[in-house]
Amino acid sequence: MDDSRLKKILEEVRKGSLDPDEAAAKLRDFVYGADLGFARPDFHREIRRGFPEVILGEGKTVPQIAGILARMRQAGQAVLVTRIGEDVHRTLAAKHPDAKFHPEARAVTVGWEKRGKPEPGVLVVSGGTSDLPVAEEACLVAELMGNQVERLYDVGVAGIHRLLGQKARLFQARVLVVVAGMEGALPSVVAGMVGVPVIGVPTSVGYGSSFEGLTPLLAMLNSCSLGVLVVNIDNGFGAGYAAGTINLMNKKKAN
Amino acid sequence: MDDSRLKKILEEVRKGSLDPDEAAAKLRDFVYGADLGFARPDFHREIRRGFPEVILGEGKTVPQIAGILARMRQAGQAVLVTRIGEDVHRTLAAKHPDAKFHPEARAVTVGWEKRGKPEPGVLVVSGGTSDLPVAEEACLVAELMGNQVERLYDVGVAGIHRLLGQKARLFQARVLVVVAGMEGALPSVVAGMVGVPVIGVPTSVGYGSSFEGLTPLLAMLNSCSLGVLVVNIDNGFGAGYAAGTINLMNKKKAN
Amino acid sequence: MDDSRLKKILEEVRKGSLDPDEAAAKLRDFVYGADLGFARPDFHREIRRGFPEVILGEGKTVPQIAGILARMRQAGQAVLVTRIGEDVHRTLAAKHPDAKFHPEARAVTVGWEKRGKPEPGVLVVSGGTSDLPVAEEACLVAELMGNQVERLYDVGVAGIHRLLGQKARLFQARVLVVVAGMEGALPSVVAGMVGVPVIGVPTSVGYGSSFEGLTPLLAMLNSCSLGVLVVNIDNGFGAGYAAGTINLMNKKKAN
Amino acid sequence: MDDSRLKKILEEVRKGSLDPDEAAAKLRDFVYGADLGFARPDFHREIRRGFPEVILGEGKTVPQIAGILARMRQAGQAVLVTRIGEDVHRTLAAKHPDAKFHPEARAVTVGWEKRGKPEPGVLVVSGGTSDLPVAEEACLVAELMGNQVERLYDVGVAGIHRLLGQKARLFQARVLVVVAGMEGALPSVVAGMVGVPVIGVPTSVGYGSSFEGLTPLLAMLNSCSLGVLVVNIDNGFGAGYAAGTINLMNKKKAN
Amino acid sequence: MDDSRLKKILEEVRKGSLDPDEAAAKLRDFVYGADLGFARPDFHREIRRGFPEVILGEGKTVPQIAGILARMRQAGQAVLVTRIGEDVHRTLAAKHPDAKFHPEARAVTVGWEKRGKPEPGVLVVSGGTSDLPVAEEACLVAELMGNQVERLYDVGVAGIHRLLGQKARLFQARVLVVVAGMEGALPSVVAGMVGVPVIGVPTSVGYGSSFEGLTPLLAMLNSCSLGVLVVNIDNGFGAGYAAGTINLMNKKKAN
Amino acid sequence: MDDSRLKKILEEVRKGSLDPDEAAAKLRDFVYGADLGFARPDFHREIRRGFPEVILGEGKTVPQIAGILARMRQAGQAVLVTRIGEDVHRTLAAKHPDAKFHPEARAVTVGWEKRGKPEPGVLVVSGGTSDLPVAEEACLVAELMGNQVERLYDVGVAGIHRLLGQKARLFQARVLVVVAGMEGALPSVVAGMVGVPVIGVPTSVGYGSSFEGLTPLLAMLNSCSLGVLVVNIDNGFGAGYAAGTINLMNKKKAN
Amino acid sequence: MDDSRLKKILEEVRKGSLDPDEAAAKLRDFVYGADLGFARPDFHREIRRGFPEVILGEGKTVPQIAGILARMRQAGQAVLVTRIGEDVHRTLAAKHPDAKFHPEARAVTVGWEKRGKPEPGVLVVSGGTSDLPVAEEACLVAELMGNQVERLYDVGVAGIHRLLGQKARLFQARVLVVVAGMEGALPSVVAGMVGVPVIGVPTSVGYGSSFEGLTPLLAMLNSCSLGVLVVNIDNGFGAGYAAGTINLMNKKKAN
Amino acid sequence: MDDSRLKKILEEVRKGSLDPDEAAAKLRDFVYGADLGFARPDFHREIRRGFPEVILGEGKTVPQIAGILARMRQAGQAVLVTRIGEDVHRTLAAKHPDAKFHPEARAVTVGWEKRGKPEPGVLVVSGGTSDLPVAEEACLVAELMGNQVERLYDVGVAGIHRLLGQKARLFQARVLVVVAGMEGALPSVVAGMVGVPVIGVPTSVGYGSSFEGLTPLLAMLNSCSLGVLVVNIDNGFGAGYAAGTINLMNKKKAN
Repeated sequence: MDDSRLKKILEEVRKGSLDPDEAAAKLRDFVYGADLGFARPDFHREIRRGFPEVILGEGKTVPQIAGILARMRQAGQAVLVTRIGEDVHRTLAAKHPDAKFHPEARAVTVGWEKRGKPEPGVLVVSGGTSDLPVAEEACLVAELMGNQVERLYDVGVAGIHRLLGQKARLFQARVLVVVAGMEGALPSVVAGMVGVPVIGVPTSVGYGSSFEGLTPLLAMLNSCSLGVLVVNIDNGFGAGYAAGTINLMNKKKAN
Repeated sequence: MDDSRLKKILEEVRKGSLDPDEAAAKLRDFVYGADLGFARPDFHREIRRGFPEVILGEGKTVPQIAGILARMRQAGQAVLVTRIGEDVHRTLAAKHPDAKFHPEARAVTVGWEKRGKPEPGVLVVSGGTSDLPVAEEACLVAELMGNQVERLYDVGVAGIHRLLGQKARLFQARVLVVVAGMEGALPSVVAGMVGVPVIGVPTSVGYGSSFEGLTPLLAMLNSCSLGVLVVNIDNGFGAGYAAGTINLMNKKKAN
Repeated sequence: MDDSRLKKILEEVRKGSLDPDEAAAKLRDFVYGADLGFARPDFHREIRRGFPEVILGEGKTVPQIAGILARMRQAGQAVLVTRIGEDVHRTLAAKHPDAKFHPEARAVTVGWEKRGKPEPGVLVVSGGTSDLPVAEEACLVAELMGNQVERLYDVGVAGIHRLLGQKARLFQARVLVVVAGMEGALPSVVAGMVGVPVIGVPTSVGYGSSFEGLTPLLAMLNSCSLGVLVVNIDNGFGAGYAAGTINLMNKKKAN
Repeated sequence: MDDSRLKKILEEVRKGSLDPDEAAAKLRDFVYGADLGFARPDFHREIRRGFPEVILGEGKTVPQIAGILARMRQAGQAVLVTRIGEDVHRTLAAKHPDAKFHPEARAVTVGWEKRGKPEPGVLVVSGGTSDLPVAEEACLVAELMGNQVERLYDVGVAGIHRLLGQKARLFQARVLVVVAGMEGALPSVVAGMVGVPVIGVPTSVGYGSSFEGLTPLLAMLNSCSLGVLVVNIDNGFGAGYAAGTINLMNKKKAN
Repeated sequence: MDDSRLKKILEEVRKGSLDPDEAAAKLRDFVYGADLGFARPDFHREIRRGFPEVILGEGKTVPQIAGILARMRQAGQAVLVTRIGEDVHRTLAAKHPDAKFHPEARAVTVGWEKRGKPEPGVLVVSGGTSDLPVAEEACLVAELMGNQVERLYDVGVAGIHRLLGQKARLFQARVLVVVAGMEGALPSVVAGMVGVPVIGVPTSVGYGSSFEGLTPLLAMLNSCSLGVLVVNIDNGFGAGYAAGTINLMNKKKAN
Repeated sequence: MDDSRLKKILEEVRKGSLDPDEAAAKLRDFVYGADLGFARPDFHREIRRGFPEVILGEGKTVPQIAGILARMRQAGQAVLVTRIGEDVHRTLAAKHPDAKFHPEARAVTVGWEKRGKPEPGVLVVSGGTSDLPVAEEACLVAELMGNQVERLYDVGVAGIHRLLGQKARLFQARVLVVVAGMEGALPSVVAGMVGVPVIGVPTSVGYGSSFEGLTPLLAMLNSCSLGVLVVNIDNGFGAGYAAGTINLMNKKKAN
Repeated sequence: MDDSRLKKILEEVRKGSLDPDEAAAKLRDFVYGADLGFARPDFHREIRRGFPEVILGEGKTVPQIAGILARMRQAGQAVLVTRIGEDVHRTLAAKHPDAKFHPEARAVTVGWEKRGKPEPGVLVVSGGTSDLPVAEEACLVAELMGNQVERLYDVGVAGIHRLLGQKARLFQARVLVVVAGMEGALPSVVAGMVGVPVIGVPTSVGYGSSFEGLTPLLAMLNSCSLGVLVVNIDNGFGAGYAAGTINLMNKKKAN
Repeated sequence: MDDSRLKKILEEVRKGSLDPDEAAAKLRDFVYGADLGFARPDFHREIRRGFPEVILGEGKTVPQIAGILARMRQAGQAVLVTRIGEDVHRTLAAKHPDAKFHPEARAVTVGWEKRGKPEPGVLVVSGGTSDLPVAEEACLVAELMGNQVERLYDVGVAGIHRLLGQKARLFQARVLVVVAGMEGALPSVVAGMVGVPVIGVPTSVGYGSSFEGLTPLLAMLNSCSLGVLVVNIDNGFGAGYAAGTINLMNKKKAN
């Protein structure tokens, strides 16, 4: 439920076309979330944060996911379910035929509408092929928010000329998401070249003493480049959301 | 074997209705535990601690669980088996038809009797839907002890208004169990609001640098709120037992 | 500022003996805390939590400590400053002659009044001589709250007979704080003997692989005894506060 | 050396008022940095990143700091030296009388000029008094870049009403830096309330299992709130730089 | 190949019943081990250490295990294969019908002969039922060496009276192996009671912050009791071997 | 694409037998890599590093591996795919019949040609049978580069005479790769005996507190022997490549 | 107080030369320890363990050490204070002129008497010069117990011939203490050569990733040699005590 | 004692100018090292390893250092003492006037002679000014061995153009030592550019989550570039020795 839907409800009440009691019921969910017993979806989040509550599929049973999804759709919210496979999508799609699966980002979207012309400015860079699912999760989120996202993949520091050969694209971006596993050096190198915010996403790609992504996480936090910002290991979602928010600040300003 | 059963045995001996040798056999188990070779169940625990020995199902074979359960039932003890699935329940129920499965708490109970009117005062709060099994384990234990347990679920700090909207329920509790994964901030916020003991239970819900629950564990131990008490990761059982004990102290006092 | 002082202010306003503007100034601090720029003491905490805000001396400069202390005294609050040495006390005592130093607990108290007859029931147990400062911090806090505290020191598990020889004292307590460094086994053994809440406090006493208290912390969290509750390493304050709260619940009930 | 100085040099060459050889010498440093043997200051950074190279004082000898500072001043660069005490300042000020010490931020600035009217929008929030040096480092950097910085200190989650009482200030900010030690929950709570980027700075404030700031670092990385961005422990500099960059993006856009 | 077999070979050479070349081939393996390409079994170990080389089944393929086993049997050595299941046993037994499976110790033995009357003195103590496989591995090794092993299981510190009720058995032992998971306190308590060597074996039994046995390992290393000796997590083999060696020292002395 | 192929292309252009546009297309890939969307194989690497880009099979889907392999073959590159099983080989071999599986090294090679007479000098030493796959990966890489590799396996420090019995082979090598799990002592002992570079490869062989190879990794990094060089846990590839490079330096020199 | 002194007291009571009340006072201390408030020395330990309670000087104030020492002397106990410098010795010696300082072991002994002819059999081996204080602590304890201790120092694995050149001394020992820092390989190599118990003592000697002794600790726990037993980092005391106990078992047997 | 001195001794014996007994005494030290009680310097090392034993000053007392130094000089060995300050040098220089202090490398050398024309080929690269002492330690060792060492300092990845501007120097080297703290990315970038061995040295330069050099250590071990070889944190000595050895292999070959 975004801001316009809220105003519409209140407008209908004013015009007498909506009964105050029904309106109250709609708004109660909106303010405190619906109480499903096992979950309490936060319908108010879209207004506060500019993005509806997201269902992190990992760690939830399929009935739980389906329950929250149904309740959110009933409240008129667009839904994003992350970290699920095609099998979960099939179950959800049985009830929600418009549920769309994004295989590379391992995510399902339901009920999203275009938000006008996408705002250019977000560039997602990745170090290796195995970082792809995380990078695509970042892209998907930023796109759902109304950003136009460029991709620059497999330009790891082992062959720095591949990155240097793409300088123009780096300089065009207003905010970058840089995804890397193993030694996690890519955000440091990129941030040393550009003057805009760089969000580093460490991935669990690697083996041995990468310790499931701990190594690139630490490397990004200790970057000698100015102001690399870091999110949790494999957290493409958080990086994409933050990048999208930063990029859209310009748009709002411009309006 | 609770205190009343002990007195009954001694009373029967005094009245001559129980042979001293038989009584001795019953009491030997009671004091030192039965020696099953691979296990030595502690029948005395119920008197010392107010709760019989519990079978932690995780890490035991089904025959081991069944063996201990049978021996405890034979000694007249109520039994709680934790961290098992429905399949283990089915095996146990074949011999103990009154074995009851609690799917949300992943536990089986056998032979428990009501302990009079439940004592109100325990509130179990959880941060997210995935914390539910741990929260329900806490609820089950406290309820078996004779407490009446309130539940307040999915009120994580990402939407603090959901928690603030439930202030009244927080203030009514005499002891709280607060279950949270990810960054584990919920117990700190709750403990800052109430003047009664708060027991934090970190969960292994999360990914990447949550390190299977290490992050919320550390966060709760370092709470800037006064006197948050912490138990092991996913240890709903320990939290529920401690909360139940604290809450029942009032009852005993009142009597 | 406790509840009675709040009522007194309002009563004075009602009677006309206090100007509403002055009252408002007093209450503003009370609700939102005083803004010292570098600190915002929480005067409201005493009502919410039953204990005024505490100044953790460690990590603060002496002028900062003195500034917060002065502001809290001005607001009529009793003050506890923890983790400071005698030199800091001397500085504070220059302005606050009633500031009292507690050398074993490494703390200063100012302006505390007796809260009637202390409520018996708290027992503080420690494993070794080096754990003493932490144990004494726990004692001091619980005593300030109005509890009568018993001490049972240097009864570590290396000579279990010392502990077993004190069973009677263990069984009399309504809540125990058990302080231990090195392998941190003491709370497990104690909790296996009693039926009341046991709060474990790991200390940084030890060397090598004790890792500054990590080992006893982990040991207490993994206790095989029912419901040991744990606080941060060396956090005598938190343990004493929680134990005091639990013990006073009985008193309130009784009234 | 900022963009305008570069153009000025080239303009002088065009006009014949600067000898090409002298210009070349000036530009050589500018592009590759000056080779001091032990250091190679990056004069080009100001153009690439919008901020000149910074001297991290920690871990350098005073002669090394003085040497780099002198060379940067000679190249016409403004200088920021971080993590140094007043004693180092005194040494530097002997040669650079305009060197200004910022005691709360533990930093020295030399040769900075006002960059027009500061751009409002940056809010720095801190959890406790001991977090102040880190928060002030963030403020100083953002201010040097041309931002107007608001401060909201000592509003930790243990008294959530102090934070909630300042909602208006939170909602006015375009980007927030949230500094917290101990359990590090503050960025999660703040980010749950606002719709703009939140940069979390964990501090080494705490003891025991805070592990010198590891706990708040992990907590912030695992925030359940959307898109909290994290920097290294105590890295006020990085957070202030990133916040300043994001805030100024609006200004540039507007121009 | 033990000492007597070596002498027999040399004796046969002296008597002319064994060709020097054949003898040399036999002895070559004996001194340098047989070179199987992927393995080089150490036939000399039995003389140096009093126990033949052991095949750690975990991490080896079944053909590798079978190959080493066959070569050792061919050299006349008794064989112990540890950490394997019944399925591996079945494969090995197809070629070595005298291979005996020990289900509780998860081990296979082939070709062991009685070593005279077992020497009493080894006591293996365990904390819980789940520690059984590790404890049994210790028992098996010590028994193969010629020790008589007593078992005292499931006497964890949560019910210290179970342990105290078995004092006599503790005092009879000449060396103890104490196996415990979770908080790992049992070796400390036992070592505080007896005056003989205590070997602690931490197990991976537990969950959450037991970190797969790290917690009991650290606890045992930091024991406040005199001289607890520690082996790797789950290393029943090493503990049993060391205990057996210490116990047999007496026997040799006596002879 | 090695140096000679590059010259051949340019020669063909000069002679007119290759159209400049076609040549440009060939060279574009060669310099910047082919953009497959999900991957950007670095064809230039062979010239820079003396070894073509390698496909780390672990963490990639089979279609991703097949896609990169096909593109590299199309560009005339020899290919090495590491950390894959026989099933992946079968899929790849369907399209590339000359793909050869190396079961012990868990790798596939396609299109490699002999590089003249192999250069002797590389010795690969391993501690135990379970270290074999890592050791063989090192051998394979060094052999592909044109080195002749000697193997000395299963000579762990538990039977130091096995190692000492092979001194001659140790002294002949010009560079050694020493592979060891568990306590990782072998490289220290070997490096104390020889005067040439020793590259230590820790393996994840072990259990309990070996922490998946962390223990041998730390042991090798802290070697008291002069100049042991270390690579990541299980990184046979990196060790073999480095050893091969060092050994071939002599060959080039000699030419 | 050893066994003979106990019998003497009882004998005096029997003969009437000691008043029962005085005897009771002496024995009370003996059984439960003296209650000094801050300490409760365990006088009974000498009988249970064969060694009186030891004062770990590290972490105690000098007055605390002096207090416990005085009380133990008063009870007729010999005293060992470990981990203290010469300055503490001077303070103690003022009151106890027979207090002897052992500079290499950093310890003080008071009131020890010769225990007859020392029993040979203990060998203490060390890897490097910096391990000396830990090795000497082990020697001192074993000597106080009545063992004759041989020393073999600075025979680290970087020059394995130094160790091999001392084989005869290794083979003569009945129990070995092997002290090593850095990579901690020495106990593995030694244990592979001998057939008697080897106790490894990791030291905090090293830097960087030795992590204050964690690396040799882990290395010793993961030894591929049979049955290396391990104590805490720098715990020469524990190793010496355990080695002494094992060695004396033979003596007792022989008597 | 190098190879030529050994031959000289034997030659003198042959010629009768040296008494066999005196020669034997000289050679005994040479083979087994001198037994100083606390140390056993390895005079044989120079022949085995090409470099005499080094005295790691850190962790040794000044008398210990002086003792070993004197004994080594007496045996005719050149000496290198690392990790000591100018004060230690002054003490040593009192007895050894030719002792030379190298302030940047924090080392002392005594008795080194030129080894002919230095062999070019070693390049030492560092990321920042604070890495200098470690880099200089590497340079000193390689130079003592007879290498000519180039230095390229302060070319961290935050300004990648500084590194790229020095390509020619990178390509000339036959072996590189790359020293870096913070995120430790420099060896990965360098190794991606050159075809010769790269030895990474992580430094403890950094703060917060650099964890005293753990972060760059992990980053270098997980490098995505081919074959980066790693040594312990701050181990400039080991890196310089290994680089020197590799570089001199060419020289020997050429001879």
